[in-house]
Formats: sequence, structure tokens, C-alpha cells
Amino acid sequence: MDFEQLQKQVDFIHEIDKVKYIQRKTRLFNSDRTENDAEHSWHLALMALVLSGHSNEAIDLFKVIKMLLIHDLVEIDAGDIFLYDTATSHTNTIAELAAARRIFGLLPQNQAEELILIWEEFEAGETAESKFARAMDRFEPLLQNRSNNGGTWKEFNVPYDKVIEKKGIIKKGSDFIWKYAKKLIDNSLEEGMLKR
Amino acid sequence: MDFEQLQKQVDFIHEIDKVKYIQRKTRLFNSDRTENDAEHSWHLALMALVLSGHSNEAIDLFKVIKMLLIHDLVEIDAGDIFLYDTATSHTNTIAELAAARRIFGLLPQNQAEELILIWEEFEAGETAESKFARAMDRFEPLLQNRSNNGGTWKEFNVPYDKVIEKKGIIKKGSDFIWKYAKKLIDNSLEEGMLKR
Repeated sequence: MDFEQLQKQVDFIHEIDKVKYIQRKTRLFNSDRTENDAEHSWHLALMALVLSGHSNEAIDLFKVIKMLLIHDLVEIDAGDIFLYDTATSHTNTIAELAAARRIFGLLPQNQAEELILIWEEFEAGETAESKFARAMDRFEPLLQNRSNNGGTWKEFNVPYDKVIEKKGIIKKGSDFIWKYAKKLIDNSLEEGMLKR
Repeated sequence: MDFEQLQKQVDFIHEIDKVKYIQRKTRLFNSDRTENDAEHSWHLALMALVLSGHSNEAIDLFKVIKMLLIHDLVEIDAGDIFLYDTATSHTNTIAELAAARRIFGLLPQNQAEELILIWEEFEAGETAESKFARAMDRFEPLLQNRSNNGGTWKEFNVPYDKVIEKKGIIKKGSDFIWKYAKKLIDNSLEEGMLKR
């Protein structure tokens, strides 16, 4: 019995456990506890599952869910970067590409290549699937901040215009969800969770 | 703009955050920290993604992944039951069905019905998809216990025969993964991680 391929897959399964230790800045709903990348990825996958009907374009939902399940694996090596961090670039850095090659590279070659392509597609944000996946990634922390009386907006003094700018990416995936999100952001301003 | 459907979906998204607080008995790989149900569900979904080629039967992988993402939502109301708990039944209890109806019932009706059916299919374990999904659910804690020098087997004095009996369900989803898993269990006996 030749377990060579399976052993590579098990090594990958073991390695990605580290995602559970990567803490985001955002906190769980109505909570003081920060969310980790594994919890975040699971939640986004389920959000895509129930919200896909609101996508601007027809999408391959399974591909969206694959993207969301793997999108933060590179942070095992490259770390989490806060959305409102102005010093560090959010673009596809050299460190993240090296991380993708190392981590997905644990898998048999055909699987590694497939997942690297999906991750690159997510990062580029140009296809219908990646636009919708990225909309989910921006929508979840907005809901969390709303439930935490402002959350990271208050904690890091993020002004209204910056939130609108960063969350506007939701519109590329779903005009409809963006209308709802914009209303939440405007309500947050009125209620003092968010400042000008 | 009518947000009634979307609001129901957002209410569901908010509710399922509670899965992140449900602690399993099993601990993360090489770790003292217990795993929560959200982390567990994310890990199983990724395991299915990379291991599906070893399934005994042709499977709709997207359906398997949906099953794994939602399979523990009922524990929000019904709680986690330890695999080796002999007092409490692991079968589809009345409490779990009520939980499924309440939690999925937050969604618009057509989505609620679809997800309850998928959850029931997973619980019944009769289709090719549910057999493979359930194999993933048994395989992950085996790998975790191996990495934790016996983990819950040692902690709760679970004997070899009981582990073989409970993990044998892996064979229904994949003979190949079962051969590998059986070897790990036998090695664990030889190495003293597991007792007769």
C-alpha cells in the first residue's frame, strides 16, 4: 500500500492547523474575544452559501467557497494585516506568494497548483467569484463591529470616510448587500459608533 | 429597497457565531488547547477538499463540504457529545432535530429546507456524500490524538477495541484512508499511546 500521496495530504492537514492561532483584530459578535482565521474562514464560507443569491453576476459558488476556506492560509507565514493598517500594503506581497508556494506546496503537485491558482484569483479580485468572495470578507467584520458598538472602528479611531472607502468593495460583489451595508454604516455614524 | 430576506440571512449569520464557543474534547494538533466547533468544521471542509480522491464512491464534493460546514450548528442548542460518551446517544436525537428547525429556520424558507435536508442526510450516513463526510469527522481527531501522544484516548482511558469500533466508520467513506488510519491506530498501541 503506497501512502505517499496521502501522507503529503496529511502533512498539509497538520500544517494548516496553525491558522487557528492567527488572531484577527476584529472580535466575535457581541464579544471581547478576537476571532481567529479558521473561525473567520468558516464563517465566510457559510455567509457565501446563504448570500450567493445576491451576487451581481452568476457565480460558481463552490469556487467561491474554496477561495474563502483557503484565503487566509498564507497568513501562517505572512501574518494577518489589519484592514485599516496604512503602513503595510494589503496587496499581494512577495511574502504571501512565498507562503502560498510553501504551504500549498506540501500537497501533491496537481492539488498545490490548483489551490495556488484559486488563491491568486481571490487576491486579484477580478473575476465574479473573487469579487463576491471579497465582498464576504469585508461584510463579516462590519456586522461584527455593529454588534460590538463600533468595535475596531472605535478602538482604532477609523473615520467614516475610510470605512466607506474600504467597505465599498462589497459593491463589486453585490450592489444589494452594499446598499444594506451602507445603511448600517450610516446608522453607525448617527448612533455615534463611528465618527467623521 | 426590501431587505426582509437579507435581514433573515444576517440574523442566521449572527446566530451561528455561537458555534465558536462550543468546545470539543479533542485538542488542536500538538496542543493543550481544545478545538471549537467552528475551527473543527473549517478543518473538515478543507480535509474533504484535499482527500476526496480517496472516496470509495463518486461524490458531489460541494455537497460534502456543505454538510461539513453545517454539521455542528445544531450543537448551539443541543451541545457537543463526546464520541466515546457511552451514556448519551450519538444518534439523531429529538433535541438536535428541534435545534436544526430553530437555527436553519432563521433563514428564508427555501434555504432552511435545503439545509435541514443536507443536515439530515449527514446524520443518516447512508449516501456516498454523507459516508465520506462522516469519515472526515472521524479522521481529524485521530490525527489530533496521534499528535498529542494519545490525547483523549489517554485522557479518558479509551481502549484499542473501542477506537477501532468508532473509527471503523472511516472505511464506509474510504477503504484507502481506513487502511492508513488503522495503521496509525496500531502504531499507537505499539507506542503506548493506546491500551488494550
